Amino acid sequence: MMHMQETVLHLKMTKMAHILRVQSAALKAVHDYMYENGVVQSMPVILSPETDPLNHPHFDASIEYYGQKLHLTKSMILHKQLALLNEGFDKIYIMSPNVRLEQGSLGETGRHLFEFTQVDIELKDADKTDFMAFVDGMIASVFSFVKSECADDLKALGRRLRMPELPLKVYESEDLKTQYGDDFERIVSEREKDPFWMLNFKREFYDREDKERSGYYHNYDVFWPEGYGEALSGGEREWEHREILRRMAERKTDVGSYKRYLEVASTGLIPQTVGGGLGIERMVRFLTGQTHVRDVALFPRVPGERIAF
Amino acid sequence: MMHMQETVLHLKMTKMAHILRVQSAALKAVHDYMYENGVVQSMPVILSPETDPLNHPHFDASIEYYGQKLHLTKSMILHKQLALLNEGFDKIYIMSPNVRLEQGSLGETGRHLFEFTQVDIELKDADKTDFMAFVDGMIASVFSFVKSECADDLKALGRRLRMPELPLKVYESEDLKTQYGDDFERIVSEREKDPFWMLNFKREFYDREDKERSGYYHNYDVFWPEGYGEALSGGEREWEHREILRRMAERKTDVGSYKRYLEVASTGLIPQTVGGGLGIERMVRFLTGQTHVRDVALFPRVPGERIAF
Repeated sequence: MMHMQETVLHLKMTKMAHILRVQSAALKAVHDYMYENGVVQSMPVILSPETDPLNHPHFDASIEYYGQKLHLTKSMILHKQLALLNEGFDKIYIMSPNVRLEQGSLGETGRHLFEFTQVDIELKDADKTDFMAFVDGMIASVFSFVKSECADDLKALGRRLRMPELPLKVYESEDLKTQYGDDFERIVSEREKDPFWMLNFKREFYDREDKERSGYYHNYDVFWPEGYGEALSGGEREWEHREILRRMAERKTDVGSYKRYLEVASTGLIPQTVGGGLGIERMVRFLTGQTHVRDVALFPRVPGERIAF
Repeated sequence: MMHMQETVLHLKMTKMAHILRVQSAALKAVHDYMYENGVVQSMPVILSPETDPLNHPHFDASIEYYGQKLHLTKSMILHKQLALLNEGFDKIYIMSPNVRLEQGSLGETGRHLFEFTQVDIELKDADKTDFMAFVDGMIASVFSFVKSECADDLKALGRRLRMPELPLKVYESEDLKTQYGDDFERIVSEREKDPFWMLNFKREFYDREDKERSGYYHNYDVFWPEGYGEALSGGEREWEHREILRRMAERKTDVGSYKRYLEVASTGLIPQTVGGGLGIERMVRFLTGQTHVRDVALFPRVPGERIAF
């Protein structure tokens, strides 16, 4: 629990000003990159009848309004797909707050907040190669802008950032697992010097499975190096009704919670897209070299902790 | 209610691409203006134990997590004041989603959503004159950037935007009420050609009352012209514990809902600040000349309406 006095001390931390300046520069670099690349910005959705199921244990967060049950957004994945129904644009992003009422045990990972913001991106008629090149460019642009704008802040924080070499390295998760065992994500994140891609994870129904190679998924994570762990998750998406249903059954997803989404899918309207979400707080934690993601948020929501403000 | 088919048609509207491009340009202008003026960006808060009371009828929106009741943010006013406790920065902004479960009757105003995003700004050791000059500059910067970047989109939407003359005009609400009667806000918004300021409204406890002139408040709204109505609300803030308590009593605000905030105030820690929030969807509605704020949102949350997605 964070008591009132602790919260005041947290807000007053000297390093917070440096961290917020790095965050501001990083966010400006993201927005500039999106604008220059013609990615239109849509506003976040906080409440909606259908949201990401998240295939890991967590608590429900919903309210009622005029007799309708509305869930707090766990991710805007389904909304991003629907947004790209419009034929006038093919790239969209949202600065999307996500509420995921995680179990308290995740409070100690250093990487989890039960409320955080993603840069959530989706591209139409594009594949994972396109998306990976797009994100490589975005990450390079953030590093370059932060290094040039925030040299004094990084120095005050004792943080050295090296410019990553592009393209970022790409690993197959299966290979890494064979080489390093079950803890491969942590081990490889600690060994690497630059952010890197890892491909193929068994996840929620919406990440596309290869049609020829059952059990291979066209999805990915970006990891921060130096042990900072996951940065971005995403993938090519399932768009065919039959495949979505098959994957939902396999993942034991309650189809009743996705009635409207499935109705759109059944008419063949879901566009072919690829995308992902980059966690802002995790990015700022890495850029500023902080131990816990709590240290980069003015009002951190750490799983299991009571909040003063 | 928006049915599924209506929602798909809404998402596919041809004009939506033009509107999103105007929105993207307007947001980029806002971020650039903030960055150039050294205003640091903090991340939004969605859930917290204490939020804006909103002195108008609406429904409660809260959830429970590990035994703590958390409210969906109605505005980040209290958080902005607390953020400025830090001595390393004196200007902050947040792209802040607000959830306000309004009564269904507001669905027809054309200006209300029960979920929307504000550019929420707070300046320390500054007064309303400083804030008004800052916002004048921001609005001019948005108009100028949108006009130069989105000429084709504005043309396609049939929208002519004129550059506002600075400084924006400033009216006293009392004078306008005397001149135009109770409906003065609507009447003046319809008559004016440029955005303008209106001063002095009796509102929530946190807007500062003049110490010499009881019943005069150092707060303000910006209005869009051509009948588009409110754009921004804000004010100088109460920071003295005694004044906050007096104002809460007068506004019948439940002090039990602000225990921690009052505890900080009682130790004299609340900084002297001024600020306000500019509604993004209302700004985009005005810039693009749309009848209802629903038309500028991909996933509009109109008071009283059921949501498909």
